[in-house]
Amino acid sequence: MSDFLDVIFQRRSIRKFTEQPVPRETLETLLKAAMAGPTAMNAQPWEFVVITDPQTLAALRANLIFAKSNAPVAICVLGSERMAKNKTGTRFWVQDCSAATENILLAATALGLGSVWVGVHPVTIFTRTVERILNLPDGVTPLNLIYIGYPAEIKEARSQYDEKRIHWEAFPPCESKRKWRKPAISKNEVEIK
Amino acid sequence: MSDFLDVIFQRRSIRKFTEQPVPRETLETLLKAAMAGPTAMNAQPWEFVVITDPQTLAALRANLIFAKSNAPVAICVLGSERMAKNKTGTRFWVQDCSAATENILLAATALGLGSVWVGVHPVTIFTRTVERILNLPDGVTPLNLIYIGYPAEIKEARSQYDEKRIHWEAFPPCESKRKWRKPAISKNEVEIK
Repeated sequence: MSDFLDVIFQRRSIRKFTEQPVPRETLETLLKAAMAGPTAMNAQPWEFVVITDPQTLAALRANLIFAKSNAPVAICVLGSERMAKNKTGTRFWVQDCSAATENILLAATALGLGSVWVGVHPVTIFTRTVERILNLPDGVTPLNLIYIGYPAEIKEARSQYDEKRIHWEAFPPCESKRKWRKPAISKNEVEIK
Repeated sequence: MSDFLDVIFQRRSIRKFTEQPVPRETLETLLKAAMAGPTAMNAQPWEFVVITDPQTLAALRANLIFAKSNAPVAICVLGSERMAKNKTGTRFWVQDCSAATENILLAATALGLGSVWVGVHPVTIFTRTVERILNLPDGVTPLNLIYIGYPAEIKEARSQYDEKRIHWEAFPPCESKRKWRKPAISKNEVEIK
C-alpha cells in the first residue's frame, strides 16, 4: 500500500494557510484518528480542545512565540490525569498523546489539510500561557497545539532517512561504556539476574 | 482518502506472530517512515536498533515482563542526545521518538504486518535491562521496543472515539481553578502580561 507511505512522506510542517474554514465533521474525523492511537495499558490519558474562535486563536498567536500561524483551527492535545482509565497514564501520557498527535497530522495530510505541531509541554512558560488562555481545569496538561487548515504553501514529500542512525542487532560489547546514573534500584523494581 | 484512515483504525496491538521473517528492505521502509516524522526544531533526536537475532530476542523476552511476544523482529527506538542536531532534542525527544514510533506502527499495518509498542522509558528497570542487553553506549536512551512480524491473530479495526474527551473552544472561565504547582518563574522565562 504505497499510497499510505506517500502520505507519511507528504506530511510536512505547514505554517501558511488559506482562510477556508475546516468543516466540523472533518475535525471530528481527525479526532477519531487521534483516539485510534495506542496507549500504554489502554489508559487513554487524553482530552482535546478544538479552537476555531478568532479571538482565542489571536490570543494564542500573541502570547506564544512559536504559534504565529494564521490557521483557522488549533487542536490542543491535553494529557489527562482526570480521565485516564488507569495510573499508567501518569508515566506514559506524553508518549500516548504524541502518537495521537501524529495520527492527527497524518489524517489531516490524507484529507488535503496542512498542519504543524507546536510544542508546549515541558516548557513551563508555554504550558502556563495555554492553561490561562484556554481556562484549563486541574487534571490536564497541554502537550501541544496543532494548527490545521487548508495549505497556502507547498512542500515536497521527504524522509530524513539516515543510515548512520540505524544499528542492525545489538551494539558490540566494547561500545558499552555507559555510566549508570544511579546505582540504587528503587523498592518497586526487581533486580535483574 | 479513506484508505489511509482505514489503516489508522486497523492498527491494533498484535502480540502473536507467525515465524515468517520480515525482509530487510521492508524493515528499511519502516525506518524511512519513522524518519519522516516531525521533530521539534528538526532536531531528529533518534537512533534505531533493529533486532532479528533469536538469542537477543530471547534475552529481551526473558527479562522484560511486557515483552513476551514471539515476533521475529524488534525495533528499539532510541532517544539520541549524541546525534541530535540541536539541544531542543533534550526536551522534546520523547515526543519526537513517539511520533516516529507511530509512523512505524502505521507503516507496518499498511504493509500487512502486525506490531506492538512495548514501553521502556521512563521505567528505570526496563531502560537498564534494554541498555544491558543491547550494549547501548552513552548518549542514547531506549524509549521502547516495537515488536514486528506477520500477524497470527486478527483484531477488528476501531477508534476509541469518545465525545466527552472533546471540548469545543476554551473551557468556561469558572472551570479554571488550577492551582499553580510552583509560583516561581525560572530565569529563562518571560512573564506573561
